[in-house]
Amino acid sequence: MIVNGVKTDSIPADDRGLAYGDGLFETILIHAATPVLLEEHFDRLEHGAGRLNIEFDRSDLLQDIELLSSDLPDSGVLKIILTRGSGGRGYRPGNNVEGRRILTLHPPPDYGSNAENGVSVFVCQQRLASQSVLAGIKHLNRLEQVIASMEWPDDDSMEGLMLDHEGNILEGTRSNIFWAVKDSLYTPDLNEAGVEGIMRNKIIKEIPGTKLSNKSTLEVLEKSDEVFLCNSVFGVWPVSRIRFGEKRLDFKVGQSGSFTERARNVFHDLLTG
Amino acid sequence: MIVNGVKTDSIPADDRGLAYGDGLFETILIHAATPVLLEEHFDRLEHGAGRLNIEFDRSDLLQDIELLSSDLPDSGVLKIILTRGSGGRGYRPGNNVEGRRILTLHPPPDYGSNAENGVSVFVCQQRLASQSVLAGIKHLNRLEQVIASMEWPDDDSMEGLMLDHEGNILEGTRSNIFWAVKDSLYTPDLNEAGVEGIMRNKIIKEIPGTKLSNKSTLEVLEKSDEVFLCNSVFGVWPVSRIRFGEKRLDFKVGQSGSFTERARNVFHDLLTG
Repeated sequence: MIVNGVKTDSIPADDRGLAYGDGLFETILIHAATPVLLEEHFDRLEHGAGRLNIEFDRSDLLQDIELLSSDLPDSGVLKIILTRGSGGRGYRPGNNVEGRRILTLHPPPDYGSNAENGVSVFVCQQRLASQSVLAGIKHLNRLEQVIASMEWPDDDSMEGLMLDHEGNILEGTRSNIFWAVKDSLYTPDLNEAGVEGIMRNKIIKEIPGTKLSNKSTLEVLEKSDEVFLCNSVFGVWPVSRIRFGEKRLDFKVGQSGSFTERARNVFHDLLTG
Repeated sequence: MIVNGVKTDSIPADDRGLAYGDGLFETILIHAATPVLLEEHFDRLEHGAGRLNIEFDRSDLLQDIELLSSDLPDSGVLKIILTRGSGGRGYRPGNNVEGRRILTLHPPPDYGSNAENGVSVFVCQQRLASQSVLAGIKHLNRLEQVIASMEWPDDDSMEGLMLDHEGNILEGTRSNIFWAVKDSLYTPDLNEAGVEGIMRNKIIKEIPGTKLSNKSTLEVLEKSDEVFLCNSVFGVWPVSRIRFGEKRLDFKVGQSGSFTERARNVFHDLLTG
């Protein structure tokens, strides 16, 4: 682990990330001993740091990663936490507070054949609150996701789908969602809640015409031909089943020429490009 | 600093309090070398731990405080952070995760003559989102308060007042608010957002008939005879002025027989009783 350029296993207990969740994070796939989409992750971190007025220096982070480079596994996950650091008067940040960068390496998760066979998804009871100032960025205030993750009904479910208080679809607990109706691909706009995932934004860019949906309840999924999830670690997972209440929506997986296939190719190209 | 019964200055970087704000805290006044309202703080911590399903053991915490007792200043602040500890699969907590208790001592803040002369309050632009599962408890997801605290307009302002998205009064960034109209005392019910302060609950108990207000916009303050703030560290502050937009509401401070005086006596009795 690296903290502000120094190898260590611990952080000062007065860090504002611990005290208030006053910070941001990124979870970056390592493939062929290289962080994937690193610039995009840095961009999001910089955007979030700007929103929260936290110090951010790209070259410092690159030096941290350089320090880790001898330890970089062939495949795995690099987690970066950026906090506002220590200090301030209670909630009020001090002037000239130095941010804190915390980098840790993790083994690659084993997701089996989820990407081929598709996954079963449940709908969480826990809703996401609307808060535009925090929407989109990957901040450290994640109790809603933690509580939602405690609802996990069984080991067959691979993700929980989260809605806003009005019942509109937002995202998975740790992924973004897309659905296709006829010739159109949709994903929530996340202007009021949710995290704008790196893979989500990549797919939006690479599949022109993807529509940002403002208010879509679960009913749209009943009319959808295909549904998939994405994040920058697992890539793209087709959704084979969504359960909510008594309802079970089943989707065909592995259809040639589908949006899901196109999205999977976007991810595949990142790894082989 | 004490972490789970051990004197140290740091915590493991994989603590879920840092990763997700997955925990709770208490800020406890120390007066005459004794933590004030300790049982009430423990009760709130236990309530919050129950809500988040975090391990809580009162006797462990008492032992931690016992360890600190030789260091307890005559006056100061004891901060307790209780996190879910380390582990789990991403947001999803592991089974049998051991919670982490982090106790730190801080010098007493110097609040000058705020309690006698009253304070000037501004209304924050930043709103608090509604999230009933998190309302009332003192959890570690505090970015809304941090962002609100960055709005501080000047050194004369002693607190920022926070509203919900509909413009209803909720609380100060680090305090609760009461207002009196004629013979009635009111405070927000905090069912959807906000922290149920220890002093707030004590005042509600000690001033029978205090009404819990469900939806009150700033207009009620224009009709109010007195307004005060409270928390368990500074006690009770009369509000002498509230500013929002072009408006300036001024209140008389120090009136004999007022609700504010009664609330101040509640705090005074705690320190002398």
